[in-house]
Amino acid sequence: MKKMIALAFTAASLMANSLVEDAQNAGLKAIPESPTALLKLIDNPKNPITKAKVELGKKLYFDPRLSKSGLISCNTCHNLSKGGDDGMQAAIGHKWTANPHHLSSPTVYNAVFNDKQFWDGRSPDLEDQAQGPIQAAPEMAATQEHVVAVVTSMPAYVKEFQKAYGEDVKITFKKVADTIGLFERTLVTPAPFDAFMNGDKNAMTKEQKEGLKTFIQVGCASCHNGVGIGGAMGAMNVTAKYKYMNVGDFKGDKNGMVKVPTLRNVTETAPYFHNGMEPTLQDAIKEMARIQLGTKLSEKQVKSIEAFLGALDGKKPYMKVPMLPATNDKTPKPVVK
Amino acid sequence: MKKMIALAFTAASLMANSLVEDAQNAGLKAIPESPTALLKLIDNPKNPITKAKVELGKKLYFDPRLSKSGLISCNTCHNLSKGGDDGMQAAIGHKWTANPHHLSSPTVYNAVFNDKQFWDGRSPDLEDQAQGPIQAAPEMAATQEHVVAVVTSMPAYVKEFQKAYGEDVKITFKKVADTIGLFERTLVTPAPFDAFMNGDKNAMTKEQKEGLKTFIQVGCASCHNGVGIGGAMGAMNVTAKYKYMNVGDFKGDKNGMVKVPTLRNVTETAPYFHNGMEPTLQDAIKEMARIQLGTKLSEKQVKSIEAFLGALDGKKPYMKVPMLPATNDKTPKPVVK
Repeated sequence: MKKMIALAFTAASLMANSLVEDAQNAGLKAIPESPTALLKLIDNPKNPITKAKVELGKKLYFDPRLSKSGLISCNTCHNLSKGGDDGMQAAIGHKWTANPHHLSSPTVYNAVFNDKQFWDGRSPDLEDQAQGPIQAAPEMAATQEHVVAVVTSMPAYVKEFQKAYGEDVKITFKKVADTIGLFERTLVTPAPFDAFMNGDKNAMTKEQKEGLKTFIQVGCASCHNGVGIGGAMGAMNVTAKYKYMNVGDFKGDKNGMVKVPTLRNVTETAPYFHNGMEPTLQDAIKEMARIQLGTKLSEKQVKSIEAFLGALDGKKPYMKVPMLPATNDKTPKPVVK
Repeated sequence: MKKMIALAFTAASLMANSLVEDAQNAGLKAIPESPTALLKLIDNPKNPITKAKVELGKKLYFDPRLSKSGLISCNTCHNLSKGGDDGMQAAIGHKWTANPHHLSSPTVYNAVFNDKQFWDGRSPDLEDQAQGPIQAAPEMAATQEHVVAVVTSMPAYVKEFQKAYGEDVKITFKKVADTIGLFERTLVTPAPFDAFMNGDKNAMTKEQKEGLKTFIQVGCASCHNGVGIGGAMGAMNVTAKYKYMNVGDFKGDKNGMVKVPTLRNVTETAPYFHNGMEPTLQDAIKEMARIQLGTKLSEKQVKSIEAFLGALDGKKPYMKVPMLPATNDKTPKPVVK
């Protein structure tokens, strides 16, 4: 009996090992457990992560005064309480304007693992990306001058910039965006999948392990791979006949390539696809298999993949609600029109 | 020499004591230091504060899905990162609608000390108040059914309600609002003024103590009193000729009475007055003295009162950014139109 149990354990262990290898061979990667290895993966060599910069970046991320109206912060559309996005089909911004291309806000969690930023990959990193929505008329609608004027009007912000970057720091729009981007780099959510890949055989349930196998066998990992389980540019068929009508005029980049979204925390980021037209995860799985892989999945396969995706629900960083410096007479007034 | 210092100390102490007494006689009250005394002051006897209820209330407070659009939470207009309000003249809500009466969102911090809620005092407490903005068309624009459907669609929320109120809890709109109101009761911010009143003679600076004297002498405390340093209904002259034009059609309650706003954290809650038309604190002090007290204050008096108001900047409760349950297929979809 003892021997049988021991054999069973060995077999389970071998199976798990081989599944880890299969996942590795399919290009799936774990978030490293070692803080040093993780830091190396997420850090910005040109502007290394420090506690002072990240704390400041967090405040800026939550500060609606960076927007023209004083009402919209980064956190409005990339809500850290809600899986890092807004749950909308198309983002809503300044003056209640929907995204003109009917694009859905992607999650900011683990966005550091994306090869490029924005759905069309036009931005190389989070620092560059952060400059976009702040200035976009249908989003935060601010000018660079507005942002600098808001931040420099408050002595507490100026002090924090000095603490983060030295006494002689020049507070520019780029510096603000760089600091927000740096904070965003820290928004990493290790999940049961990572623990499993890093050696804890019991971190995923039996169903989740089966789902991982299905995920690999069906071919999902051909696009959804890397540490982000997505994040590279891929040849998504944006003009294919979706179950839901093609909504919006988005056609990807000049080569028709579209950023493959991360699947981390995907159970929290409905509705799905670049235009947010798919409300349920099961249907999203089916549609992607049909359009991208030319495969009709069985209900069992769909549920199996869904089970695995649950193993990508990650632990969010512990974060205190930031207290922002007070507006004063020099702070530009909100303009809602 | 020793004797002289001792004498000086005694004199300072006597002066401080007499100032505390003057403040008490003027009706100013401190937030109690004793947790038991504080709890007694803020608790709801009909629905006593517990950790489970407050944690749940915090989530609901931060959850934009309670609104029709899925974009606006209590925290949008009563932003806990920004002194507990939105920094707008008139609140902006669903479909970017400005408050039709041009009313400015009051701070939620220390709102528990208000005798009544809303600018016209039409609501007896925070639990009742919380029902208003959720349903108001220009604010969160939700129906009671929407709110209940959202909350009950998510098993994690249902579990938290059961944990807070027992297994057989009935999740009604009133229960949701009651829980939000209960969370809001805990948003109390003890300040140097309170420490001073509670016996720490050095908690306020010399300028702040002078300011407190001026505040009392000039008559500010005739309306701004109690623990909230405001919060009762008062006979504000809403039709008086303000330095800034009378904006909006607000005339107070049926007796022309208006809620006196708390002065706690007032340095963080510009712009001022019920219609948000006064951008600076110094001008707000001058205008109130002119209109309410018939007094023209000297620059010195204005600055002195302003210094005292700084002693009402309180310590905000330590709060973790809440992580909300994930939307699922049963959760009502956002409607932005």
